[in-house]
Amino acid sequence: MRDGTLDLAWNTRAARIQKRIDTLASITDESGMITRTFLSPAMQKANQVVAEWMQEAGLAAAEDRVGNLVGQSKADPGSPAFLLGSHLDSVRNAGRFDGPLGVLLAIEAADTLRSNSVEMPFSLAVVGFSDEEGVRFQNAYIGSKAFCGLLTPNELAMPDQNGLTLRRVLEFRNGTDFVLSQPTLPPGRIVGYLEVHIEQGPVLENEGLPLGVVTAIAGQSRSRLTWTGKASHAGTTPALLRRDALSGAAAFIREVEVASEKFNGLMATVGQLHVEPNVTNVVPERVVHSLDVRHQEDSVRNEASAWLVQRAGELAAARRLAFAWETLQITQARNCDTNLSRRLLGAVETVTGSARRLPSGAGHDAAILALLFPTAMLFVRCRDGLSHHPDEFVSLEDIRAALQVTVELLSSWESI
Amino acid sequence: MRDGTLDLAWNTRAARIQKRIDTLASITDESGMITRTFLSPAMQKANQVVAEWMQEAGLAAAEDRVGNLVGQSKADPGSPAFLLGSHLDSVRNAGRFDGPLGVLLAIEAADTLRSNSVEMPFSLAVVGFSDEEGVRFQNAYIGSKAFCGLLTPNELAMPDQNGLTLRRVLEFRNGTDFVLSQPTLPPGRIVGYLEVHIEQGPVLENEGLPLGVVTAIAGQSRSRLTWTGKASHAGTTPALLRRDALSGAAAFIREVEVASEKFNGLMATVGQLHVEPNVTNVVPERVVHSLDVRHQEDSVRNEASAWLVQRAGELAAARRLAFAWETLQITQARNCDTNLSRRLLGAVETVTGSARRLPSGAGHDAAILALLFPTAMLFVRCRDGLSHHPDEFVSLEDIRAALQVTVELLSSWESI
Repeated sequence: MRDGTLDLAWNTRAARIQKRIDTLASITDESGMITRTFLSPAMQKANQVVAEWMQEAGLAAAEDRVGNLVGQSKADPGSPAFLLGSHLDSVRNAGRFDGPLGVLLAIEAADTLRSNSVEMPFSLAVVGFSDEEGVRFQNAYIGSKAFCGLLTPNELAMPDQNGLTLRRVLEFRNGTDFVLSQPTLPPGRIVGYLEVHIEQGPVLENEGLPLGVVTAIAGQSRSRLTWTGKASHAGTTPALLRRDALSGAAAFIREVEVASEKFNGLMATVGQLHVEPNVTNVVPERVVHSLDVRHQEDSVRNEASAWLVQRAGELAAARRLAFAWETLQITQARNCDTNLSRRLLGAVETVTGSARRLPSGAGHDAAILALLFPTAMLFVRCRDGLSHHPDEFVSLEDIRAALQVTVELLSSWESI
Repeated sequence: MRDGTLDLAWNTRAARIQKRIDTLASITDESGMITRTFLSPAMQKANQVVAEWMQEAGLAAAEDRVGNLVGQSKADPGSPAFLLGSHLDSVRNAGRFDGPLGVLLAIEAADTLRSNSVEMPFSLAVVGFSDEEGVRFQNAYIGSKAFCGLLTPNELAMPDQNGLTLRRVLEFRNGTDFVLSQPTLPPGRIVGYLEVHIEQGPVLENEGLPLGVVTAIAGQSRSRLTWTGKASHAGTTPALLRRDALSGAAAFIREVEVASEKFNGLMATVGQLHVEPNVTNVVPERVVHSLDVRHQEDSVRNEASAWLVQRAGELAAARRLAFAWETLQITQARNCDTNLSRRLLGAVETVTGSARRLPSGAGHDAAILALLFPTAMLFVRCRDGLSHHPDEFVSLEDIRAALQVTVELLSSWESI
């Protein structure tokens, strides 16, 4: 499989992945853009099309109770299986690679291994998750959580924008009560999970590398900060008598930049900010802004957050501002599996000649699967760091490299 | 007039001013709040009511071509007249003192002087301008500009929100073409103009002083600044690869604070700010914000602006941001008349025992009148610096002090 003379076959296979990605991109709930949401008509159509491709690759395809599409080379409940996949749903007005790349590449890898009669110590299963982006219920990972039997009663009670709860949607679909903690495949069968995904960031492109192995899916805290001063006339209130909420927030945003330098690898972002009354000639009374802090090590994220809380308090006091910090959500970091990632890194080095490891700042299905199974992720370089955008792009060459790495990983596996 | 035994009379007169202010506050275009705009039904009603009060004070009252209400103790076109006044229109949901205080206090001063048969080297005229706030045509000072014959053809061509131009509104009102450069009173008659107005700022209250004499009406520049970086994923874009427009804007806002310390007396404000795309998990692509810079000396304002332009350019370059600075409006500073202000300061010292001078950061009719006549302004302390707000408040005591000062100024004038 490592023979350079196979180049033509690799190129043909990469081109087929790309063509299938383009076909999927035409299946949408909103014409003129790519939008596929949980259990929508476009998702049903996408599953039909992908199921045919699975079957052509020798995988028996079926949907589970939440619309995850699972293709298995051998459905024997006792046999060990290696799981590959990603998601088939999308954000609104999405790019074409985020999700589908990992599913279609997995199918192609399965076809390659079967065509070449490669012996492996496990069968293969490929999954296309039905909801990773969380557009319909404003709650991500419904697909992978249900696949793992990890959905919660609270999640079942959430309504979509039509007021239908997830529970009702699923009971209507399945014609029976929805039972939680009923995984799609027996967890004991799955020896590992690999997700191939576009990086959605600029790191690999910036270093001229096609692929990277994910070390961990970063932990994240999302907070809302509120600075309250006093509205006053911009022309009649001297600097010393002002209590300007925007000056406080601006000084804090500067400290967020400082934190990113001070704590190595920290991603800290103020992305959303609102000013009240937001009038040119009135000193701002109130500023409310978001703060998104991520790091692959929870201890570093916690230390950085504590430092920022302290700085915010000092800045507010110096400007006589009232200040509130609300933590809205905390997600712990999830490490990828050390052994599986080491194997994957070896395959990347074999195929590309270099081995880059990097954290994932975005969430992925892999973060859910990692709760139950040894999990690894392969990032593929994207153009300009762009994702969740119609211009999202991965080159044919990089798709080929990712396919080669996936096949290399699985074909070089001698025993479990 | 300086006799302490007149205290009771002063209190009675101050109370009448306050009562009339309350009466005017009930005359509004929008029930439940105070709103009176140019030539609206409420403004017509207000002029009727104020005209009666003028007549009770011995002033012959008439509206001019743009609805300014003018009351004269002697209409002889050859005689010198001292002009007192302010405006009777308001912002939407206004306070009750901004404008009316100066008009009703002037009427009371005229009544006091007449009742006491005080000899003065001029007759008195009191004006209530019909538009200072500029709500209807989004253009301030229509009243005082027309009074002075200074309206421009461009201003006549401006439409209100119904698409009616000022020219059509005025021609409909007057039944004739509107001729520019036709002042309401012969400018040669007017020996000076005094405007009593609430401070609309916190300086006097902060120093425990009831009154202050305005040195100058500050010049002002209004600008729009645009910082453009690149939208990218908050979780996947390392600090060094970011081009965060909000970080640039925030660093600049800090420099605006620095400028206020560095340039004595500078009022510099970022009051309005918009972030794009303004999403918690996306590094901001673009920030557009206002910058309002005021100073009583144009040279200081220009120097401060130049310093800020330079700092902005440096901050943008350091963060690889595109940057644009658009100057939307520049108003030159207008000094009050030295001699008249010195007389006024003497009267303030006589009545209150202290003499504070301060610039006006807000615009006033006085800035227009000062183009033609010796002009002075008396600021009256307001509670909490608050104005353009229903809670706007001036105490009875401070109204009394302002009335006493006005009467003192005029009654102590021996010759011109």
